[in-house]
Amino acid sequence: MPDSVLVHSPATLSNLGCGFDVLGLALAAPYDTIRLRRTATPGVCIRHLDGYNLPTDPTRNVAGVALLALLREVPEEIGFEVEITKGIMPGSGVGSSSASAAGAVVGANALLGNRFTKMELIDFAMAGEAVASGARHADNIAPAIFGGFTVVRALEPAIDIVALPAPPMWVAVVHPQIEVKTSESRKVLPAAVPLGLAVRQWANVAGLVSGFLTADYELIGRSLDDYIVEPARQALIPGLAEARKRALAAGAIGGGISGSGPSIFMLNKTEAIAQAVGEALGSVFAELGIEFKTYVGPVGTEGAKVICES
Amino acid sequence: MPDSVLVHSPATLSNLGCGFDVLGLALAAPYDTIRLRRTATPGVCIRHLDGYNLPTDPTRNVAGVALLALLREVPEEIGFEVEITKGIMPGSGVGSSSASAAGAVVGANALLGNRFTKMELIDFAMAGEAVASGARHADNIAPAIFGGFTVVRALEPAIDIVALPAPPMWVAVVHPQIEVKTSESRKVLPAAVPLGLAVRQWANVAGLVSGFLTADYELIGRSLDDYIVEPARQALIPGLAEARKRALAAGAIGGGISGSGPSIFMLNKTEAIAQAVGEALGSVFAELGIEFKTYVGPVGTEGAKVICES
Repeated sequence: MPDSVLVHSPATLSNLGCGFDVLGLALAAPYDTIRLRRTATPGVCIRHLDGYNLPTDPTRNVAGVALLALLREVPEEIGFEVEITKGIMPGSGVGSSSASAAGAVVGANALLGNRFTKMELIDFAMAGEAVASGARHADNIAPAIFGGFTVVRALEPAIDIVALPAPPMWVAVVHPQIEVKTSESRKVLPAAVPLGLAVRQWANVAGLVSGFLTADYELIGRSLDDYIVEPARQALIPGLAEARKRALAAGAIGGGISGSGPSIFMLNKTEAIAQAVGEALGSVFAELGIEFKTYVGPVGTEGAKVICES
Repeated sequence: MPDSVLVHSPATLSNLGCGFDVLGLALAAPYDTIRLRRTATPGVCIRHLDGYNLPTDPTRNVAGVALLALLREVPEEIGFEVEITKGIMPGSGVGSSSASAAGAVVGANALLGNRFTKMELIDFAMAGEAVASGARHADNIAPAIFGGFTVVRALEPAIDIVALPAPPMWVAVVHPQIEVKTSESRKVLPAAVPLGLAVRQWANVAGLVSGFLTADYELIGRSLDDYIVEPARQALIPGLAEARKRALAAGAIGGGISGSGPSIFMLNKTEAIAQAVGEALGSVFAELGIEFKTYVGPVGTEGAKVICES
């Protein structure tokens, strides 16, 4: 067993299109880089090597809480020393906190001889994610652990994740620097939805899963539309409708709000299209006078992984 | 082009598990047998060679209305003479009217040199189905035309059906001879559903589609559960809960209400299990003193097809 590991843990998209709370997708980049060392001292000690000023108290840090949850299942008296270099900007809407939580437990598991299953790692990482989001969610954690395209089929009575391959695609994301509080983006959600609209939504979910599994890009594009959550949240994201319009004109397959916003993602067949789509997305916010960042990267087939150990 | 064709058109399951109004599955048997001849006389002339006393006025017969819809798109002055032998008992909950409508238009298309696409045939057949059910639905029509496992992703603005392969499975169906009026089974549906329940439902839809496409029987079994429609309709079908319990004990993968009931279907890995499950389903209604019929047949990979022509 190694004493020290270096882990890359990827950005992810959650609430993918029509798949609110269920469908997620891993990117190959950006990613967080996490070094973990096994220590004889019990507990977790965290250092951030980035400038984001995140909490280092392990009970308030997503990676820390995830590791503490894992350590509760470890009979040995050990601990972890953790150095995190965030490649994913916090609040960017591409699963920043999930990447740290998932990467930390994947690294810790390697230091423990890989004794835990991926489902157990998801459980630990969700405890960390809950610190950031206030709720146990797996829709970013699942693709961060498994890579590719994931279905969170159930969390109760047992965690049931379906990990599926995704066809080659490039993701373009724009992160407008406007604050959308998670509490606010929750509050606008409807308590109930008309049955007919719910049926249209799960018809699209069925189409989207079929499209991913048969690598049918046109079907993916037709199926991404979200009839329930995006209409409720679009008022929180100025420029969303125009951004979609320009992205589609630039050749995107389709897209929507990333996570709970304000980031917007678009799926694309090639890197060249994704670059053009990223520019198209950015142009909307430039015109609105809103600062923004864009990311372009391929869909990631792998989840968080140990890239070297010693 | 042939002057006369003989068509087999299969029974189908609709509202498959969690996939209300969206997911369907074709059986290989039972099926309707339909002979169609092209005539120089315009219009449609129907004879039933079975004892079900169905209407033969083409404007009131599902096959007749479907053929009249098709003929409106045919510039030639022609008509069809149709003989229908129903192998699928009307009202049995396995797509009896859809089989006749789908078989009729598939046969007519063969007599016209296959000039229409499958999507167009679905459109014509839906017109026929509407005579029986009062609404344009494609969830039995789609598997009757395509075979296998189907997703009705959308009917508007265009009909969009995703036809997918289904892994080898055997279906057991019990048809208790109790009347459940379509109007009644519609009336009990909720107008709106809590968002959390809708999310659980589309998580299962995503799991079910994944399970079919990856031939994962366990995943199919876990994903079939319907949180919305079956709870609303179960009071209309005495014995449903007990039937499911006995079917699962006999080895069924899972199942639910077939169509809008009162029939119940169960999916099974083998013919032997399906036979045992059919008996288990029947035993519940025997004890309740309710007449019933059971059907056992393999999933059908083909939709309605011409089996001979002259």
